[in-house]
Amino acid sequence: MWAELLPVGRDEATGGYHRFAWTPAELECRAWFLDEARRRDLDVEHDANGNMFAWWLPADGSRGDAVLTGSHLDSVPGGGAFDGPLGIVSAFAALDDLRGRGVTPRRPIGIGAFAEEEGARFGVACLGSRLLSGAIDPARARGLTDADGHTFAEVMHNAGFDPEAIGPDDGLLARISCYVELHVEQGRALDEPVGVASAIVPHGRWRFDFAGEGNHAGTTGLSDRRDPMLPFAHMVIAAREAAERNGTVATVGKIKVVPGGVNAIPSSVTAWLDARGPLDDAVRRTVKDVDEAARVAARPHRVSVDFAEESYTEIVDFNLALRDRITATLGGVPVLPTGAGHDAGVLSARLPAAMLFVRNPTGVSHAPAEFAEPADRLAGVEALTAVLDDLTRG
Amino acid sequence: MWAELLPVGRDEATGGYHRFAWTPAELECRAWFLDEARRRDLDVEHDANGNMFAWWLPADGSRGDAVLTGSHLDSVPGGGAFDGPLGIVSAFAALDDLRGRGVTPRRPIGIGAFAEEEGARFGVACLGSRLLSGAIDPARARGLTDADGHTFAEVMHNAGFDPEAIGPDDGLLARISCYVELHVEQGRALDEPVGVASAIVPHGRWRFDFAGEGNHAGTTGLSDRRDPMLPFAHMVIAAREAAERNGTVATVGKIKVVPGGVNAIPSSVTAWLDARGPLDDAVRRTVKDVDEAARVAARPHRVSVDFAEESYTEIVDFNLALRDRITATLGGVPVLPTGAGHDAGVLSARLPAAMLFVRNPTGVSHAPAEFAEPADRLAGVEALTAVLDDLTRG
Repeated sequence: MWAELLPVGRDEATGGYHRFAWTPAELECRAWFLDEARRRDLDVEHDANGNMFAWWLPADGSRGDAVLTGSHLDSVPGGGAFDGPLGIVSAFAALDDLRGRGVTPRRPIGIGAFAEEEGARFGVACLGSRLLSGAIDPARARGLTDADGHTFAEVMHNAGFDPEAIGPDDGLLARISCYVELHVEQGRALDEPVGVASAIVPHGRWRFDFAGEGNHAGTTGLSDRRDPMLPFAHMVIAAREAAERNGTVATVGKIKVVPGGVNAIPSSVTAWLDARGPLDDAVRRTVKDVDEAARVAARPHRVSVDFAEESYTEIVDFNLALRDRITATLGGVPVLPTGAGHDAGVLSARLPAAMLFVRNPTGVSHAPAEFAEPADRLAGVEALTAVLDDLTRG
Repeated sequence: MWAELLPVGRDEATGGYHRFAWTPAELECRAWFLDEARRRDLDVEHDANGNMFAWWLPADGSRGDAVLTGSHLDSVPGGGAFDGPLGIVSAFAALDDLRGRGVTPRRPIGIGAFAEEEGARFGVACLGSRLLSGAIDPARARGLTDADGHTFAEVMHNAGFDPEAIGPDDGLLARISCYVELHVEQGRALDEPVGVASAIVPHGRWRFDFAGEGNHAGTTGLSDRRDPMLPFAHMVIAAREAAERNGTVATVGKIKVVPGGVNAIPSSVTAWLDARGPLDDAVRRTVKDVDEAARVAARPHRVSVDFAEESYTEIVDFNLALRDRITATLGGVPVLPTGAGHDAGVLSARLPAAMLFVRNPTGVSHAPAEFAEPADRLAGVEALTAVLDDLTRG
């Protein structure tokens, strides 16, 4: 399966993946998913939110009380090969293993591919699972825009969906008894092949708009300038200092400079802050510190600062009973929290959810160096097979 | 003429112009130029470097000893309406005035439209006049790339030029006795309708490449990070401080962040520094200070810094005899230096060159607020008419 999927959306120069929701590369990944499902005679279901499900139904064709696994196909810009696809490839492989063993499920087993998990195109992570579970207002989702100014509603329409129909699907959720997502580990915290998630730490995204005055870089004296790049720079430094002080992490990874000419003082700089940490208060304090520092730095330059929370997720503790059952099935693998958001975290508000992590020897994620050894990937498939087997027996 | 030219390449939301060399908007400006030339029965000449000339030849058809005026059609991203086009529109208008007065020139009068003056596409300002005058190695020019990775050679080829033929054209230069460029003033220094340039202050562009390690914004601890955004931020602040200390200006208006995801620590940040000032030494010192500060800031983050000079122009004193003659013709208008580079500055290395400035009430340039009052534009045309009349009589 990897052989077909690996070249899709890969930048051959960097090895990084560019699979933004409903771009040609991501559509190719979706086609691959549907091919794999059809090849296995699975029952394909599209919900109204762009999420896809491939169901292996029991002999009686019943659809309720299902066990769902899966992950997502989209990537961050320049992302790695495993974040998302590992969970889906492993799910198909686990299903093949179960069939190879002659298992016939008593309950449906589904493989889900959730839309826009990274939020790389429309700015809100886990958009597909948020819509499905009612964690985002459909009207707000419709109005989200990508970098080219296209709204989510337009893109959904062009992909053949009815943007008016997006939103929570309680009927679908009621059919799912639990969701188990396998994912590549994204730090260096896991030193065994497979681990189980305890929680997702609080995390969010905030946008800072610095507005000054565009002007000529050569003919405008320093005191005449209203240069938004300067308070932006102070904000970047303040973010690191606030993270150190508050025991969190904080990152500025995306910035938009208008007009972006070498010889033009920018008229505006927009920067996105990603902040996360084990404690809700500490994350909130970090963001507040950064906002205050940005405003203090902006004043002497006569630059205005607008600040908006794009998303925030409080701590997500995964369902304890499900986690204990999985840990018991796998014979006591490590249990660890993660700093990354996931569809499993969003869905856990509506149903029991759990995550399996596969070791990442580089500790790098969202970048080409993200990796999982073949032996560890195999261990991941074996673990997922055992978990699905256990959950669909009971 | 303005009515046809003003909508081309204008962003209706911001009022800013996007006319990068050989993009559709700039090609439309070129077509407009050729139309205006043909409408006046001018003799159109394309050189090998993408520069265009419209010649009003004397009755005997002689082509030597010409007086050239003109400017450029391309813009910075989000630029104003007048930087470049004002010189070309005024040149056509001055030619109409001369004809209206019944003047028949004893020497050719040319209107030049120089290519890629802003360097907004390929990074080197005044690329067309640099090639024509031998101020840049043609091989280096061929290899320059735009933001999409297209080389100048490819773009020239696609525009119908032979990239192997670019470079100095001594035959063309030998036919031009002097060049007078009219341009909108780009600061607040001119408080009469028209002025004459004394000099272009030293100016240049430098590129800083900060290379770290791309990683996940949530799962990578602060001490594990090699985040290039942090030394970049220090470099921005250092640039302002160095400019204040050394009596120059310094601007960071363009930055490229890879991969540019909200939830990804960047693997690299590339930033361009524009620095200018009245004294060569002071500009050099500013750039050296910024480079040193960038290196000091990069070290604790285990980020590497690469530094390259993309262009540098020492002080350009315009030809004194030509300047005095123009000032006498215009009856003692203000004489002032400029912080902006121009084709007239590049060509002054090869032939007598001069500049007329038209007042800019906002002092803003390279931005939509750039302006010249209609009365001042008319005064500019009258001044250029008088200068061309004088220069082609003698």
